[in-house]
Amino acid sequence: MDNKIRLSHGDGGSYTRQLIKNVFLKYFGEPCSGDMADSFVFYTDSGKLAFTTDSFVVKPLFFKGGDIGKLAVCGTINDLAAAGAVPLYLTAGFIIEEGFNIESLCRIAQSMAEVSRDTRARIVAGDTKVVEKGSVDGVFINTSGIGMVSELYNPRRMEPGDDIIVTGGIAEHGTAILIDRYNMNIEAELESDCGPMSSLLSVLNKHLAYIKVMRDPTRGGLATVLNEMALDRGTDIELDEKSIPIKSQVEGINDILGIDPLYLACEGRMVIVVEKGYGDKVLKHIKIFGNCREAAIIGRVASGTHGLVYINTAIGGKRILPMLEGRMLPRIC
Amino acid sequence: MDNKIRLSHGDGGSYTRQLIKNVFLKYFGEPCSGDMADSFVFYTDSGKLAFTTDSFVVKPLFFKGGDIGKLAVCGTINDLAAAGAVPLYLTAGFIIEEGFNIESLCRIAQSMAEVSRDTRARIVAGDTKVVEKGSVDGVFINTSGIGMVSELYNPRRMEPGDDIIVTGGIAEHGTAILIDRYNMNIEAELESDCGPMSSLLSVLNKHLAYIKVMRDPTRGGLATVLNEMALDRGTDIELDEKSIPIKSQVEGINDILGIDPLYLACEGRMVIVVEKGYGDKVLKHIKIFGNCREAAIIGRVASGTHGLVYINTAIGGKRILPMLEGRMLPRIC
Repeated sequence: MDNKIRLSHGDGGSYTRQLIKNVFLKYFGEPCSGDMADSFVFYTDSGKLAFTTDSFVVKPLFFKGGDIGKLAVCGTINDLAAAGAVPLYLTAGFIIEEGFNIESLCRIAQSMAEVSRDTRARIVAGDTKVVEKGSVDGVFINTSGIGMVSELYNPRRMEPGDDIIVTGGIAEHGTAILIDRYNMNIEAELESDCGPMSSLLSVLNKHLAYIKVMRDPTRGGLATVLNEMALDRGTDIELDEKSIPIKSQVEGINDILGIDPLYLACEGRMVIVVEKGYGDKVLKHIKIFGNCREAAIIGRVASGTHGLVYINTAIGGKRILPMLEGRMLPRIC
Repeated sequence: MDNKIRLSHGDGGSYTRQLIKNVFLKYFGEPCSGDMADSFVFYTDSGKLAFTTDSFVVKPLFFKGGDIGKLAVCGTINDLAAAGAVPLYLTAGFIIEEGFNIESLCRIAQSMAEVSRDTRARIVAGDTKVVEKGSVDGVFINTSGIGMVSELYNPRRMEPGDDIIVTGGIAEHGTAILIDRYNMNIEAELESDCGPMSSLLSVLNKHLAYIKVMRDPTRGGLATVLNEMALDRGTDIELDEKSIPIKSQVEGINDILGIDPLYLACEGRMVIVVEKGYGDKVLKHIKIFGNCREAAIIGRVASGTHGLVYINTAIGGKRILPMLEGRMLPRIC
């Protein structure tokens, strides 16, 4: 490990894992995250609660399909949803740059309030810090959340033949940010997929029992989240490139930029591992949920135990999809 | 209200209150903080839980008596303690500047781990973001926390004659930061009072029943927290200047700088309102707790209902102690 923090330490890939392992887990101990899942689950007499935190530093603050406020609330709600939890309470911590426009702050707060209202995840406590001009870039937001874990959700070991579903088109958030970041003059209707995934739990209802793992493919995208799942559980994963839902605009823009959309963030999608034989059944129910019409089975757990992710390419080849290593797009969320 | 954020919006005084009211409470609604207390309390079948969040932007990152890591963990633990809650679980969100020294990050994580171990408040989930050089000043940390509220703690209306206790010498954290910030060449042994107050709850034990309000006097210091209590509850408060514990070094340094230590942050103290007639009894027990030997009754709830704080000065006068207004020391926590 270097002795300086690099941007790649924050990209969600192997450098981030290294930093977490060598610094945070080293001092805080394993309970910090277990298999590096995003939420911690604990027991009360009322049931299981999940607890999670996320800081948001996205640039630009306002983008097509959302803003840092919407992203912050959805991000934490989706981390809870991935733990099988319906969000109950959120906190919001703001670090604001001196001179920041109060009207922009109001727009951000309004976005947060809207998602909060729609999902019934109440923002119940907050904190506001202001730092001198130049000490922070605009505004950064931390959201932490508590959710009630569904009794029907029972995460467990992945086994060969389990189906892997993604709930919608990939890389839309990352690509929307790219368009803004590079001032690309594209007549794109493309928007970030940023949105709350909590109602998916109620749509899935009893089918939750067939679900073994859920993860939201944010930083580092689909490829990174699948690599984490494979690595943490020591099983191989096999993807079919042709089955992965992706908008042609997303493909086109990433082609131009030479970026692999498999590594670009989604902010309103879920990757779901379903017990062997139940994939189609669960998929049918997922597609009922508003923004999941493009949901698809994109692959399966393979029999290998090397913790690798393979992809069967559209042209008939097979290649390893490695863990993201080195710099991708910084400040995507 | 201006249309730009000013440093004073973050000083914990009347501008901060205004910002919270006009932006955050406006959109998030009242449950955001009720009487602007720092923790939200909710019910489970296992008992009452408190939930709180705080972001830390202190400068310098390392100061006499602590660092941003120790401060972040103690700050959230103390917010929980103020709600009568023993801390259970904490999250830690880091926003780190590209190029930041990993060894410094390790020292910070180690400080956090130490307080976590001592208080049994487990750090259970985290988040790491890295931003480009110049987009954040070193490292900022958010800590959120969940605690179990003692059944014996029953916060209620302040009434005339209730005693007000502060658990130790005031303004030590703020003054330690001042010494560092202004590179004051002082042979001071003065350290920040930064420390966890959670064990105070167990020391107080059954005497918790006599306690009506607890608050930790951080940003804006003793004067600000008392003004908030007076304002939120519509009762006057009367202080005796001579009774307020303050180290002579703290007085001396603030005299030189022309700063009123009543407005400077403590990070290991609690302000406690005790039911009329029980002040001495509770004080005796508080003094048992390690860092509370200087604890004192510093005043009482007065009969007025204007929400004002008066101070009987050492030279026999009486003056109003107003809410902090306008710029004090930024980035104290």
